[in-house]
Amino acid sequence: MHFPEALSLKSGASIHDYHLAFETYGELNADRSNAILVCHALNASHHVAGSYEGQPKSEGWWDNMIGPGKAVDTNKFFVIGVNNLGSCFGSTGPMHMNPDTGKVYGADFPVMTVEDWVNAQARLLDRLGITQLAAVLGGSLGGMQALSWTLQHPDRMRHAVVVASAPCLSAENIAFNEVARRAIVTDPDFHGGHFYEHRVVPKRGLRIARMIGHITYLSDDVMNQKFGRQLREGMDLKYSTQDVEFQIESYLRYQGDKFSDYFDANTYLLITRALDYFDPAKADGGDLTQSLAKAKAKFMLVSFTTDWRFSPARSREIVKALLDNRRTVSYAEIDAPHGHDAFLLDDARYMGVMRSYFENIASELNTAPATKEAA
Amino acid sequence: MHFPEALSLKSGASIHDYHLAFETYGELNADRSNAILVCHALNASHHVAGSYEGQPKSEGWWDNMIGPGKAVDTNKFFVIGVNNLGSCFGSTGPMHMNPDTGKVYGADFPVMTVEDWVNAQARLLDRLGITQLAAVLGGSLGGMQALSWTLQHPDRMRHAVVVASAPCLSAENIAFNEVARRAIVTDPDFHGGHFYEHRVVPKRGLRIARMIGHITYLSDDVMNQKFGRQLREGMDLKYSTQDVEFQIESYLRYQGDKFSDYFDANTYLLITRALDYFDPAKADGGDLTQSLAKAKAKFMLVSFTTDWRFSPARSREIVKALLDNRRTVSYAEIDAPHGHDAFLLDDARYMGVMRSYFENIASELNTAPATKEAA
Repeated sequence: MHFPEALSLKSGASIHDYHLAFETYGELNADRSNAILVCHALNASHHVAGSYEGQPKSEGWWDNMIGPGKAVDTNKFFVIGVNNLGSCFGSTGPMHMNPDTGKVYGADFPVMTVEDWVNAQARLLDRLGITQLAAVLGGSLGGMQALSWTLQHPDRMRHAVVVASAPCLSAENIAFNEVARRAIVTDPDFHGGHFYEHRVVPKRGLRIARMIGHITYLSDDVMNQKFGRQLREGMDLKYSTQDVEFQIESYLRYQGDKFSDYFDANTYLLITRALDYFDPAKADGGDLTQSLAKAKAKFMLVSFTTDWRFSPARSREIVKALLDNRRTVSYAEIDAPHGHDAFLLDDARYMGVMRSYFENIASELNTAPATKEAA
Repeated sequence: MHFPEALSLKSGASIHDYHLAFETYGELNADRSNAILVCHALNASHHVAGSYEGQPKSEGWWDNMIGPGKAVDTNKFFVIGVNNLGSCFGSTGPMHMNPDTGKVYGADFPVMTVEDWVNAQARLLDRLGITQLAAVLGGSLGGMQALSWTLQHPDRMRHAVVVASAPCLSAENIAFNEVARRAIVTDPDFHGGHFYEHRVVPKRGLRIARMIGHITYLSDDVMNQKFGRQLREGMDLKYSTQDVEFQIESYLRYQGDKFSDYFDANTYLLITRALDYFDPAKADGGDLTQSLAKAKAKFMLVSFTTDWRFSPARSREIVKALLDNRRTVSYAEIDAPHGHDAFLLDDARYMGVMRSYFENIASELNTAPATKEAA
């Protein structure tokens, strides 16, 4: 969808004549009350569920949770997936032309924040004729967007489902992001972010960034279970500092290579920066309770015991701040071995909790039109 | 000290005509029974204690623990610090000339293992006329050397003091090493390890390697205490993906720059590989109890609660395997906030434990000559 009018950004800059790529699943009901917005994290897109015709391996990134008869049931809900501004899966991003200069944006693409994405999503909903969402749902960075929705547009949603997220990044989180960014920016093929005109891609930097990311998405335990100290070729060491010896090395190199083939380097910088910047309590001197007083939604928070990137303790900070404000909060801490990645994986307890919560949201829907007429 | 004769290495290769840089502190006693060997970790050297004349900021890396009147008291002990082969602080390494080719070793420097270093250290002790050490002491990778000493030369030592170490690296540890190595190896200035002849240094890769290292040496808690989300310049964000915004970024960049000025890239590869390879239980099918049966020393193990790189659980694996073998083991798990770095820092409980243990070793010394004569 094309948006000609300028969107003011938190940085003071603005962007106009941009496109947002989005997908929808299910049917919007008569009173337009069953819409669920799904917000994506670093490496995902608007393609949330289902597969493309003739492409059997093209399942959406949350296809295990969202679809007909699934935990988030598209027979009941109208689900919207949207690719954020600055990403590289169809919405306007650094690889596109800046209408003001006629040149590719590159490093000049405006810096995006979670708040900016939420405002861009709200405009998309305006155009879709959706005044109030049944829920905003997101994991990790997507969870930050769901949280931010409750503060920026408290009357436009009834539920916020925040999975494996945090009220802000810790110093260690920022540190990992910074190393990944330095790897990209110091790659000689980055050319200050204007690599498109040099017809190169800073693949070395992207590979390193992805490898670091992958380590932090997994738990130490699951890495030991999956790879341990297993050698790649039989039992014999090759005694080499540069060749692959261990399976974990081979796995990381493969993940890095794959990522560097499709992900945009400027997008990586933009999205990790949006993560760094998100801090709704900052305006209230760090008092999260005070900042969350604006929220009106009912909340569901989910965290995973082995997630050390967005640990349960960080979710509990949000739960506490909401309880301080006497908001309605459900909280599930799922005992799962997979680290941060758990939010994308199948786990019976996790899926059970999500199903229950969305069934409750659906049950409100069924009676909603009647109640409204009565009022 | 120059060693002309060839040292056979675990890889099957060998090295000859090499030098080992070492320092000693205190006096060797009459029966040569008070020697303590200190083994270093990734980024340290033979310069363990004291300062160089006229260089007030040249304290050794364990100067807080080792010296006259300190926990490891050089009024009582003869302490030996030795720089390992392949390192870059004086002993023969990749930046030196290969006597067989007349060219700089570079990437052709033989791959070193913990076992090889221990054998090189044993040769140094032969030349110093020390048959049996009072103790071998090391932290992190240095602790692995202390542990390996008890298996390779069980009769040449009475105590092993293993601090913040592990019986082998986990998959996650190897993963972090691999990312750091890839950053170095894929730096265009690395030239396959033969960068010396191109008169360049792969500084980009070394910086990234050091930044990753630093994150894993610190705990999340101490990073939050020291840096938190503090901005570098006042309270205002600059909204930039490439400039420094947060203090933690500035700190990491500084550490990376400093490191890339003095550390050798091939040394980084070699030492992280030695870490990866160390796995004394491998020969016994992973049964650490069986492998440690060879050890005769008394053991002191120390770990730190917030160390997630070499967690207390890993030290406890060693303790259990020693107890299974009915060895004498002391174990201290120090509640310290500093992560892996804690082993280099001052902490009253840690220093107290070390002092007590080394006082016990010293008390054995005083009576040792008399006992020997009686025998």
